[in-house]
Amino acid sequence: MKVDCEKASFEARFNLLADQRSPFCLGVDPSSSMLGSWELPDTIGGLTTFCDRLAGWIGSSLAVVKPQIAYFERFGPKGLEALVEFVHTMQEQKALVLLDAKRGDIDATNEAYGQAVFDRQTGYGVDAVTVSPYLGFDALEPLFAAAEGAQGAVFVVVASSNPEGRFLQNARTETGLTISEALADAIAERNRRGPRRCCGAVIGATRDDVGVSLVARIGEALILVPGLGAQGASYNTISMMSRPRSVIPTAARSILAQGHDRSAFVDALNVQREAAYSLRV
Amino acid sequence: MKVDCEKASFEARFNLLADQRSPFCLGVDPSSSMLGSWELPDTIGGLTTFCDRLAGWIGSSLAVVKPQIAYFERFGPKGLEALVEFVHTMQEQKALVLLDAKRGDIDATNEAYGQAVFDRQTGYGVDAVTVSPYLGFDALEPLFAAAEGAQGAVFVVVASSNPEGRFLQNARTETGLTISEALADAIAERNRRGPRRCCGAVIGATRDDVGVSLVARIGEALILVPGLGAQGASYNTISMMSRPRSVIPTAARSILAQGHDRSAFVDALNVQREAAYSLRV
Repeated sequence: MKVDCEKASFEARFNLLADQRSPFCLGVDPSSSMLGSWELPDTIGGLTTFCDRLAGWIGSSLAVVKPQIAYFERFGPKGLEALVEFVHTMQEQKALVLLDAKRGDIDATNEAYGQAVFDRQTGYGVDAVTVSPYLGFDALEPLFAAAEGAQGAVFVVVASSNPEGRFLQNARTETGLTISEALADAIAERNRRGPRRCCGAVIGATRDDVGVSLVARIGEALILVPGLGAQGASYNTISMMSRPRSVIPTAARSILAQGHDRSAFVDALNVQREAAYSLRV
Repeated sequence: MKVDCEKASFEARFNLLADQRSPFCLGVDPSSSMLGSWELPDTIGGLTTFCDRLAGWIGSSLAVVKPQIAYFERFGPKGLEALVEFVHTMQEQKALVLLDAKRGDIDATNEAYGQAVFDRQTGYGVDAVTVSPYLGFDALEPLFAAAEGAQGAVFVVVASSNPEGRFLQNARTETGLTISEALADAIAERNRRGPRRCCGAVIGATRDDVGVSLVARIGEALILVPGLGAQGASYNTISMMSRPRSVIPTAARSILAQGHDRSAFVDALNVQREAAYSLRV
């Protein structure tokens, strides 16, 4: 794996860029209907045009973008080539790329996912990835190790923004903690072990049932917060969290839906950039 | 999405082939160390040679193969092109392909994964896929719908073969059921709703703590059972399950490790094929 040993940790790079640009993270979700609303065909050509146009419009305005891999993977290997192109373009624009992939498996398999995600020669070469903990937090260790080697980060889904996951995420383990609480503790512990913090969390802005208490136990971890905009949550929920400077607010559909028009898109993006920036000051 | 409306359901095709060939499912895990033990370079060329050789050796001896996508994805888009090639080759040999991908996200994203997995024009075009339920069983519905449209199947991880997932999978939901039990019930219910059974389960052969009771509540669902061989479980555990004809036993490393030698590989595969076949008679 090619690693740039001179670069700083994901957290340090994020903090620098967030102060310069904004902590707001734009989700990149080129769904069939989104391409349609951009008046693009639902083809690999439409996807490529979408990515090129979007990268141009974003310019150097964002610290971090979050492509959802499913919307690229639906076009198979060619769609993932378009993803790699987009990753390179955004990194040339000095933005961090957080791949929304919810990967997660047994440990031997997670080692291969670590290569897929972080290797800049043969894999996607992104800066961070979301992972799903159903096969266990400890099984994710090879992904944490790969992130450390690449100065990247892994964001574990702790409490998702959608309603369907609550029956599972709020279930109680034999210690009496909920699953989300046990994961928050495990993230804090993994970051304490070091050598540097590589482990973040995903906690939905819609999760006002648990969000504040989870943030309180998660140590210094970065927290990706989806659910703004199309999913209905607001910055009020986020500002209740105890460490707003660790928060990376993210939304996709509500902003991308303006994509037929550059100035409408930029205006919608700037509203989010400024609202997110206010969390840091 | 291109769908062959004349073909039978995944379950019907599996049962026919399992009676003719064997229900044993070979896991295809071309890890870095596995390529090494086959005396192949850890490159896209090594991966392609591995797949070609393996497909030739399998021939028409198996009902179903299970490529683990992480080991292809570690080579990025080119690795996934090799996966698509392998899928086509195995389908030409009339085997079913169950993609081990543990995908799972919110519902809008799962719709895109449905395209990625089942679409034969632009996606991987496989017959079935494993999914991870951390974001909720109901959020998986678009994947079930895509499977129904393609006469395919979706295998939900209920109780994984590795030890690290137990704290989560055995946690209790507010109804008093464990998460695994609640998922088993949801699978049974989804299959009852129809129009045909498209929903299977993954229950590790190593899970003698819960395996028998989960199988008893899961209705008529097919059950993928990993954990044989390298992970230590045996067919004794499986034969305790109440519906052995619904079981798809699977192993990878213990058989692939014979890959430097065709006859050793075929012998190891035949031992598994016969042991698995004995479950059906």
